[in-house]
Amino acid sequence: MTATEYDPIAFHDGLVKHGHVIPAGVNGIFARGPVFEDVLSRFDQVVLGFAGGDGAQVLQFPPAIDRTIIEKTRYMEGFPHLVGAVFSFSGNELSARTMSEQINAGQEWGQHLSMTHVCLNPAACYPVYPTFTGTVPDVGRLVTLLGWVFRHEPSIEPTRMQAFRMREYIRCGTPGQVVEWRNMWLERGMELLLSLGLPVHSDVATDPFFGKGGKMLAINQRDQQLKFEVLVPVISEQHPTAISSFNYHQDKFGSAFDIRTPDGEVAHTACLGFGLERVTMALFQHHGFDPATWPEAVRHVLRY
Amino acid sequence: MTATEYDPIAFHDGLVKHGHVIPAGVNGIFARGPVFEDVLSRFDQVVLGFAGGDGAQVLQFPPAIDRTIIEKTRYMEGFPHLVGAVFSFSGNELSARTMSEQINAGQEWGQHLSMTHVCLNPAACYPVYPTFTGTVPDVGRLVTLLGWVFRHEPSIEPTRMQAFRMREYIRCGTPGQVVEWRNMWLERGMELLLSLGLPVHSDVATDPFFGKGGKMLAINQRDQQLKFEVLVPVISEQHPTAISSFNYHQDKFGSAFDIRTPDGEVAHTACLGFGLERVTMALFQHHGFDPATWPEAVRHVLRY
Repeated sequence: MTATEYDPIAFHDGLVKHGHVIPAGVNGIFARGPVFEDVLSRFDQVVLGFAGGDGAQVLQFPPAIDRTIIEKTRYMEGFPHLVGAVFSFSGNELSARTMSEQINAGQEWGQHLSMTHVCLNPAACYPVYPTFTGTVPDVGRLVTLLGWVFRHEPSIEPTRMQAFRMREYIRCGTPGQVVEWRNMWLERGMELLLSLGLPVHSDVATDPFFGKGGKMLAINQRDQQLKFEVLVPVISEQHPTAISSFNYHQDKFGSAFDIRTPDGEVAHTACLGFGLERVTMALFQHHGFDPATWPEAVRHVLRY
Repeated sequence: MTATEYDPIAFHDGLVKHGHVIPAGVNGIFARGPVFEDVLSRFDQVVLGFAGGDGAQVLQFPPAIDRTIIEKTRYMEGFPHLVGAVFSFSGNELSARTMSEQINAGQEWGQHLSMTHVCLNPAACYPVYPTFTGTVPDVGRLVTLLGWVFRHEPSIEPTRMQAFRMREYIRCGTPGQVVEWRNMWLERGMELLLSLGLPVHSDVATDPFFGKGGKMLAINQRDQQLKFEVLVPVISEQHPTAISSFNYHQDKFGSAFDIRTPDGEVAHTACLGFGLERVTMALFQHHGFDPATWPEAVRHVLRY
C-alpha cells in the first residue's frame, strides 16, 4: 500500500499537503519542508555510513562552475536542452534604466544581459575532474560531495526537478581500479536501498541525449554497459524512477583534463550518485507521508 | 598574531596550501576542502544552538529561484551588475550543431541561448517572502534556512565570492515584532561571534547599490538604520569584512507579495544572516589554518 498509488499529481498534492514541498512559482523549483529535509539528511548519513571505511576525501563545490568545463566535456553536444548558463548585466546606467522600465512594463529584458564565465553544474561530479589534472597516486583518487545540480526541464511531476541534490562518489585511477569500485558499489547501493524497504531493481541505462545524433550515443552507452541505474516506482509502476546511478566514463574526463595514472596512461573515472530528493520522495511514497508511521526496521536504519 | 597579517593574496595562498580552498578555474568560484567544510558546519551548528529556543521553521530552497521574484522586488534597479539569470537552449538540431561547432572553435555561443524562468538566488531570504503571501498568524512567522547565494562579482580576494552560503533567519509580522527581533539578534549575534574569539564590531551599513541613483538609496538606508553589519578584519584591517548582516525591510516584501498581519496591515519583514564561508575564513585568519591549534575556548564552542 503506497501513499498515493503512483499518481503523480496526487503524490505532488500529498507532498504539499504534508508540508514536505512548498511550491515556489516555477515547475521543478520548490521549497523543501522541515520533515523532508530531516529525512533527506538522515538518508545522506546512511550513505556516508555505508561508505565510511573507504576514506573518500570530502569536497564541496558551489552550484555554479567554470563554463569551460561545459565546453571541454562537450556537454552541449549531448545535452544542450538541459544547460543552465549564467548571464549577467555589464551595461551602463542608461541601459540599466531602460531595462528596469521594460521589467516594470512586463517586457522581455534578457537582451540586456550577456554570458558570464559560469554555468550551473549539470552533474554533481563535473567540477571534480579538473582538480585531478596531473598524475594521480598509485591508489587513485576517491572524492565525495553533496552538490546541487541544475537541469532545465520544468515539470509538474515532483521527481523531475530543475534543481536537486546528489550525494556523489567519484573514483579516478586505472581502468581496473575504477571498474572494480563501480561493481562493488552496484551491490552496495542495492543493499543500502533495500535496507530502507524500497522495492528497487537495477538496470543498464542511458543518458537523455539530445536529438538524432544522441540516439547513437545512447546505443553505444548501453552496449558497453557504461551506465547502470537503481530504479523504484515513485510516480509510476510502468516507468520507475532512477534514484541512483553508476557511471563509467572510461577516459572521457581523463582526456579532457589531462589526468594520468603513474604509468603515464590516461586515467579512467567513474562516479555514482544518490538523488537525495528522489530517495526521500520514494520513502514517502512507499512508507507514507509521516515518518513516525514508517516500519520499525526502516526507522532503525535512518536512526530515528 | 594572525595567520597571514591581512594580506589578501597571502591569505588566499595559505587557504590553498592547507587544502581549505581548491581553485576551480574562475575567480570567486572554488572548492572547499574537508577541514573548511567541517569548520563551516560546526559554526552553523553553533548558530542553530543559539537560536534553538526560537522555534524557527526549517525550509530549504534551491539555488535557482522564480525569475518573477527578481522582477517584483525591483532587484534590477538596485543591483543589476550582480544578477545571475539562467539561460538555456531551446533550438533545433541544426542550431545545436552550429553551436557545438562554435564552442569547439573557441567562439562565442551565448547567442544561441534564451532566458529561462529562473535566476540564481541573489540573497538567501528572497524566495521565502512569496511563501508568506496571505495573512500571517498573530505571532508572525520565523523561518531559517541555509542557502546558496550568487553574486556576479569575480575577485581573487577570497572573501569576495560569486557563490557562497548564508545561514539566514527571516522574521515577518508587525513592525514592533520585527524590530524587536532584529534588535535582540544584533546583541545575540555579537555575543555568538565574540565567543569564537573574533574581534568583531557592529556598524550601520548600506547595500552595494548600482550607479548614481543608488547613492540616494544608500543614504536613505543609512539614515533609517535599516542595515547593520558585524565586521571583522579578514583581508584588511582598514576595511574589515562583513560576516553577518541584519536587515529591516519595512513593508518592501510585504507589499511586493501581499503579506498581511491579522489587523489587515501590510506585514513588515527583517532578515539576518551569517556568511558561512566568511566566518570560516575569519576563524582561519585569527586562529590559524589548523583548527587543532585553536584556543581551547574556541574549540569548546565549536564542539571539537
